[in-house]
Amino acid sequence: MSERAPFTATPIAVDEADLSVVAYNQDGLVPAIVQDRTTGDVLTLAWMDETALRRTLSSGKGETSGDRQWVRAAYYDCDGDALLVVVDQEGRGACHTGERSCFHRAFGGEDLSQDAG
Amino acid sequence: MSERAPFTATPIAVDEADLSVVAYNQDGLVPAIVQDRTTGDVLTLAWMDETALRRTLSSGKGETSGDRQWVRAAYYDCDGDALLVVVDQEGRGACHTGERSCFHRAFGGEDLSQDAG
Repeated sequence: MSERAPFTATPIAVDEADLSVVAYNQDGLVPAIVQDRTTGDVLTLAWMDETALRRTLSSGKGETSGDRQWVRAAYYDCDGDALLVVVDQEGRGACHTGERSCFHRAFGGEDLSQDAG
Repeated sequence: MSERAPFTATPIAVDEADLSVVAYNQDGLVPAIVQDRTTGDVLTLAWMDETALRRTLSSGKGETSGDRQWVRAAYYDCDGDALLVVVDQEGRGACHTGERSCFHRAFGGEDLSQDAG
């Protein structure tokens, strides 16, 4: 993980061969894990339809209920039914609650808040 | 992230209040992001039913098609419909293909293989 880039868009080539591997569920959605490039923290799990995926790649920008995310890389898993989107998170966080990560509540009682991971 | 623990189980308390927040989909499953505690790499996206979730927490062991995972922490997101499970990955990897991470194929052509993240 290199130094944090400025908050500028770096579009990813929309390759039809890549996109053809993506397997959407019966609602036409695929889960996308969103990970902070710098900290490695998992920020959120988003759901994208094909239109949103194409727009996310070509624009280089993520869309969540929280602050803006600048997409730096995107991966698809073995069978294409899950995505990993690596971003530079701008502002306070990815979560609509104001937390940096949506995963701040732990089973067994631990609450990491701003310190997940 | 502290030093890698030995590959021993560290069960997590199964708290009914925590579990009651988990929202399963119409198939009775919840997506669980599996992240390597040491590297921060996202290894896979697994799906768990309530039985598997209880067993994963109480046993402290993950079940994937790849090598064994030792659960160190588990989180649920804002609305309980996604989980994050932080593990020590034993052996070669989480992916049935033999890759360490299932997310080794990138949109736009990059292939990270053993170097994801």
